[in-house]
Amino acid sequence: QAEFLNTFVESIWSEFTPLAIKTNSINLGQGFPDWIPEEFTTKALVEQANTPQNHQYTRARGDLQLVNAISDLYNSNKEIGFQEQLDPLTNILVCNGANDGLYISLCSFINPGDEIICIEPYFDVYPTGIVMAGGVPVFVPLRPPKNPGPNISAQEWTLDESELRATITPKTRGIIINTPHNPTGKIFSKEELEMISHVVVENNMIVFSDEVYEFLVFGDNKHVRIANLPEMWDRTITICSSGKTFSVTGWKIGWLIGCKQVINTVGLYNQYKVFCVSTPLQRSVATCIRQSMDGQYFSMIQNRFKDRYQQLSQLLEEHKLKAVKVDAGYFCLVDVSGVNFPYDQNSDVPRDYQFCRWLPVEVGLAAIPTSAFYSEKNKHLAGNYVRFAFCKKKESLESARQAFQKLS
Amino acid sequence: QAEFLNTFVESIWSEFTPLAIKTNSINLGQGFPDWIPEEFTTKALVEQANTPQNHQYTRARGDLQLVNAISDLYNSNKEIGFQEQLDPLTNILVCNGANDGLYISLCSFINPGDEIICIEPYFDVYPTGIVMAGGVPVFVPLRPPKNPGPNISAQEWTLDESELRATITPKTRGIIINTPHNPTGKIFSKEELEMISHVVVENNMIVFSDEVYEFLVFGDNKHVRIANLPEMWDRTITICSSGKTFSVTGWKIGWLIGCKQVINTVGLYNQYKVFCVSTPLQRSVATCIRQSMDGQYFSMIQNRFKDRYQQLSQLLEEHKLKAVKVDAGYFCLVDVSGVNFPYDQNSDVPRDYQFCRWLPVEVGLAAIPTSAFYSEKNKHLAGNYVRFAFCKKKESLESARQAFQKLS
Ligand SMILES: CSCCC(=O)C(=O)O
Ligand SMILES: CSCCC(=O)C(=O)O
Repeated sequence: QAEFLNTFVESIWSEFTPLAIKTNSINLGQGFPDWIPEEFTTKALVEQANTPQNHQYTRARGDLQLVNAISDLYNSNKEIGFQEQLDPLTNILVCNGANDGLYISLCSFINPGDEIICIEPYFDVYPTGIVMAGGVPVFVPLRPPKNPGPNISAQEWTLDESELRATITPKTRGIIINTPHNPTGKIFSKEELEMISHVVVENNMIVFSDEVYEFLVFGDNKHVRIANLPEMWDRTITICSSGKTFSVTGWKIGWLIGCKQVINTVGLYNQYKVFCVSTPLQRSVATCIRQSMDGQYFSMIQNRFKDRYQQLSQLLEEHKLKAVKVDAGYFCLVDVSGVNFPYDQNSDVPRDYQFCRWLPVEVGLAAIPTSAFYSEKNKHLAGNYVRFAFCKKKESLESARQAFQKLS
Repeated sequence: QAEFLNTFVESIWSEFTPLAIKTNSINLGQGFPDWIPEEFTTKALVEQANTPQNHQYTRARGDLQLVNAISDLYNSNKEIGFQEQLDPLTNILVCNGANDGLYISLCSFINPGDEIICIEPYFDVYPTGIVMAGGVPVFVPLRPPKNPGPNISAQEWTLDESELRATITPKTRGIIINTPHNPTGKIFSKEELEMISHVVVENNMIVFSDEVYEFLVFGDNKHVRIANLPEMWDRTITICSSGKTFSVTGWKIGWLIGCKQVINTVGLYNQYKVFCVSTPLQRSVATCIRQSMDGQYFSMIQNRFKDRYQQLSQLLEEHKLKAVKVDAGYFCLVDVSGVNFPYDQNSDVPRDYQFCRWLPVEVGLAAIPTSAFYSEKNKHLAGNYVRFAFCKKKESLESARQAFQKLS
């Protein structure tokens, strides 16, 4: 096998999802909704499957129905969209889900040895993606609040400018941003993104911006796009996901938004890697977007996620566990330092990891250790936070009550 | 952009398919069937779309329904399958189509600078795939017959052992095989594959075997798998395609077959790149395979492809053009040296390429220049052969009659 693979191990998803299944646990681990997707989404796929012309290759950079729907969606509402008027043919590249979208972006821009900055905690595929692309991940942490009050919020996890600047070397080529952020649930503010964008412009970097939870921002909170900040359009690839947006994580259709030159570059790469993405699924996503253009679906789903977060957070509170307040996304962090379990202090395995291995087996509940989202040398920064997914049915969350009782 | 991309240009598919569409040509270029797939295939997708549980992530290495169907298919018929008894969990990896399957295989086994042998003519994504994986493509040609008789056959394109051995260096790491072969239509014989396998074993190489036309072998001809030859199972990745097999090239579901260790390696890579492949499409392919297990669909489709080849070949003959005889696949080569067209001798563009650019515009027909399947320095080896796809409806082929008239 290729040498870099010697440092790879099975991903947390390959450990914790099978463990949840094997132990028949309530799965608040991996981030997929356990509800049935809205009828208009599955109906869209049924219709596209029934259309005889939909089963052969389509345009390499994205089916015309889908790229037109995507550009219409963003162009029709600049507040949620892009400041630039998107051209469907040159500013969009459809990919095999957001994970693959990030991967091909990294592969198209990284030369061997280039350094890419990863903000910790990170979605687990970032550093491996950088390594697969021939680059070197360099880490900078979000710092949790030093003296957390009783109502600790994800917004209090912050990126320190001097720490960020200290990671820059002559080899620095780019940075991966993730907002709304997995696993904390933090929405990066305009000020924070501006600070980052200054560092980016000064050092001639490129931004890979994972915004898969862009449409899952609760209430009055606003998703801010780094691509919309001054001088950033030409150096940002924004990565989006139909799976997260429409609760169809199994469809694996994502898209990249960027300037013509950037999309050209990634398109050049991708056509030789996969040629094109599934035709019936792309056309189904096009239908889903068209039917959501009036905004009703987005409000509905935002409210649903907010409700589920509140339900989970109340349930936890009743059992003396506290969820960090979040304003977006699928996940929240929960401090489990108060929970008693057979912790092995002599093991190399971090406490939160040991906890998450114990939890399904003994309590029938699955969650994800936050230390999995930190590099080897920074795992201690994860503290005692464990990530719970609230993208789950009311009944699924309610059924976790007994498990929480055992923890309190 | 990454430096290696400076050598990349848009693929032939991005040139010739849009050109065919723009000129409203009869498209015998890109290899996708223009018929409506069998009802059981599209019905399978409708049913899977209608099943509420089918829309979230599935197992990273392949949905259980699909890997079980694949192993049952091959295990139930050793003559078309593998000598090894396939284990669904460890010998199979589902990927985003065969193109992506080859790509991730190359990425998982190539270290920077490793040399991978490509047999010319090659499917166009091979050398780019090797480069994207950090390797160096090294070329060896299939030699067409020196004194072709009147009934020239694809089988007469042969690989010379000494030419193959001459490409070996200390950096040689592997070879890409393609059988049945695109663009010639050649089926590599057992003797030829044995010759290659000796070179492979002697030089401790790995084989990437693209067998996407495995089920499209006509009449009594037999597809031979290099993985089934002595000592080859442990060093071969076989790459397969549901798109080619079930006439659904737009589904983009392929799979890799290999020994446990090889599949482990590629799986380790792929889980960080894309995590998993589309759930509803994987389950649809599982249904398609189950419904074909009795062999009826395969005989039907083999006969159809054979008939279409014969139809095209007759049509050509009536117009004094000659198709090279093929026994498998989607394509045949046609010698167009006798056709008059405004050929620019002073141009760098090879004659067959000029021909294929002229053909849609002036004659309303699209085909693919064989020189696109040769490396820069060997394009002259393509001769005056142009590739025609016969994976098209009877009426589509018949409608090419007028175009052929203009050529004769
Ligand atoms: C690629 S599987 C992980 C899904 C997800 O986004 C998460 O749980 O963080
Ligand atoms: C990736 S598009 C090309 C389809 C094909 O297999 C061919 O035409 O050779």
